[in-house]
Amino acid sequence: MNADLASWRDGAARSAIVDFVRRVTTDGSDDYVDPVDRVAVADNDGTLWTEKPMQIEIGFILQRLAAMAEQDPDLRAKQPWKAASAEDYAWLGGAITKHYGGDDSDLKVLMGGFVRAFAGMSAEDYLAASGEYLRNGSHPTLGRGFRQCAFGPMVELLRYLEAHGFTLYVASGGDRDFIRAISDEAYGIPSERVIGSSNALAYQEDEHGASVVYQAQPDVFDDGPVKAVRIWSRIGRRPILSVGNANGDIPMLEFTGGPSLPALRLVVLHDDEEREFAYTDGADELLDRASDKGWTVISVRNDWTTVF
Amino acid sequence: MNADLASWRDGAARSAIVDFVRRVTTDGSDDYVDPVDRVAVADNDGTLWTEKPMQIEIGFILQRLAAMAEQDPDLRAKQPWKAASAEDYAWLGGAITKHYGGDDSDLKVLMGGFVRAFAGMSAEDYLAASGEYLRNGSHPTLGRGFRQCAFGPMVELLRYLEAHGFTLYVASGGDRDFIRAISDEAYGIPSERVIGSSNALAYQEDEHGASVVYQAQPDVFDDGPVKAVRIWSRIGRRPILSVGNANGDIPMLEFTGGPSLPALRLVVLHDDEEREFAYTDGADELLDRASDKGWTVISVRNDWTTVF
Repeated sequence: MNADLASWRDGAARSAIVDFVRRVTTDGSDDYVDPVDRVAVADNDGTLWTEKPMQIEIGFILQRLAAMAEQDPDLRAKQPWKAASAEDYAWLGGAITKHYGGDDSDLKVLMGGFVRAFAGMSAEDYLAASGEYLRNGSHPTLGRGFRQCAFGPMVELLRYLEAHGFTLYVASGGDRDFIRAISDEAYGIPSERVIGSSNALAYQEDEHGASVVYQAQPDVFDDGPVKAVRIWSRIGRRPILSVGNANGDIPMLEFTGGPSLPALRLVVLHDDEEREFAYTDGADELLDRASDKGWTVISVRNDWTTVF
Repeated sequence: MNADLASWRDGAARSAIVDFVRRVTTDGSDDYVDPVDRVAVADNDGTLWTEKPMQIEIGFILQRLAAMAEQDPDLRAKQPWKAASAEDYAWLGGAITKHYGGDDSDLKVLMGGFVRAFAGMSAEDYLAASGEYLRNGSHPTLGRGFRQCAFGPMVELLRYLEAHGFTLYVASGGDRDFIRAISDEAYGIPSERVIGSSNALAYQEDEHGASVVYQAQPDVFDDGPVKAVRIWSRIGRRPILSVGNANGDIPMLEFTGGPSLPALRLVVLHDDEEREFAYTDGADELLDRASDKGWTVISVRNDWTTVF
């Protein structure tokens, strides 16, 4: 992958990126930033890879829930096992859509199934299972493997930033260890630089010493204000560049820069029904704020010559 | 700082380290480990720097509590403000000692003051205040600045590991952002590789966008089983080398290696009353386990030609 933004059309978004990178890397510039502080954070679902018709992680959870329901007929009568067994993607996708609309009821039911789905599994087994799902599965409508669902221009942006001394992090509302299974291969971002949601882990001694094992309860839902808090907790620095696509990314974008560092805030607008998907649900507040504050909006349709 | 363990005497500890590093870095060796998985974690207080007569962080909290009590006479009648105002180090050090003996009562009182001491402060202001304390203060009995309280042979070990492709993390029960203020300078470990305890942070929008601000409540106490969980959460890999000095480090040491990677577990034994301190309180279970499992014990008195 080259580092020259080859898939980005000339335009406001590309110019904003190139100009910002030039300013923070030019010695003597008022906006010069030491390499150690050149931190960039990117949301995952809908920012680094596609999140429609439903987040890829949901398919992984579904597969596991369906396998559980196969073993236990009682579960097949209950959500979310019922939807999983029936491949009722409308119910499942709807849980997420409703969440972004402010109604968490189905998401809570889904998460209730999720926390039970992986309870008792070691973190390493979960990582391996995620990796297997991602290697073997493919997107339901785009006709490509999951590992090819990353947005090519975003990966180019990551390489471009890296070539200019930036350190890259994923900061996702999605599950941290699920993303870790793909982040290095898809984005060149190693597991220690993936920040995300997680179920609770517990320490268990075993024949090898000890392991950490998933519990049937949530721990962190890394979205909204929590994203900013966890970026600090994990990095101990503010990002100077951030990119997101949903209302839950607003705090991450607001936290960028701060009193002493410059900031570039990027928002991915999904407006390309032909090549990807066109939607603004769950992004209304973000797009309003981007407009109010002059944040840079990336149009999938206009700014990218290719999407994948 | 050189990378040749110059301050380590020939002996079992030095040999165990050199032998392990040789095995995991020799291509074709059964124990060869890819550089990406060469993760080393080190406890901080009593492992990377001295923790007696009380943990250095406690002095920072004390100073802040005394300043609060100065402003508010009612606080001067209550612990821990009372001890802070009276410079009653015995009470304060005792809170930690009792904790390691299984009695958390005074530690909870101390932590109650701690969470109030920094409530409302942004994470960056707290980091700056910690840095100022560490730059200006000095150890009460050793006659050296706080920044010179790191153990020289341990810093040599860090450089030695780094020279052999290891990535180094601090994994401490102490406060994460306090350690971040000194970790790069003292240990060459940047803030993003410091794992530790923390009070709760909240997101607040402000004139620069937003900040994260300490709340008057604890979040994570990164000791015991939590250490192993948080090492996974932060890194997404097991360490292959770990070093600690207290019972709270046992889970971190047990979590090292695991089913598929080799492990070196190191335990610092404080047995040098002349050059540092001699104590095993809070380390009894760890020393028993080290003996049972053949973990490598580092004797300050015998294994190090210099301490600081």
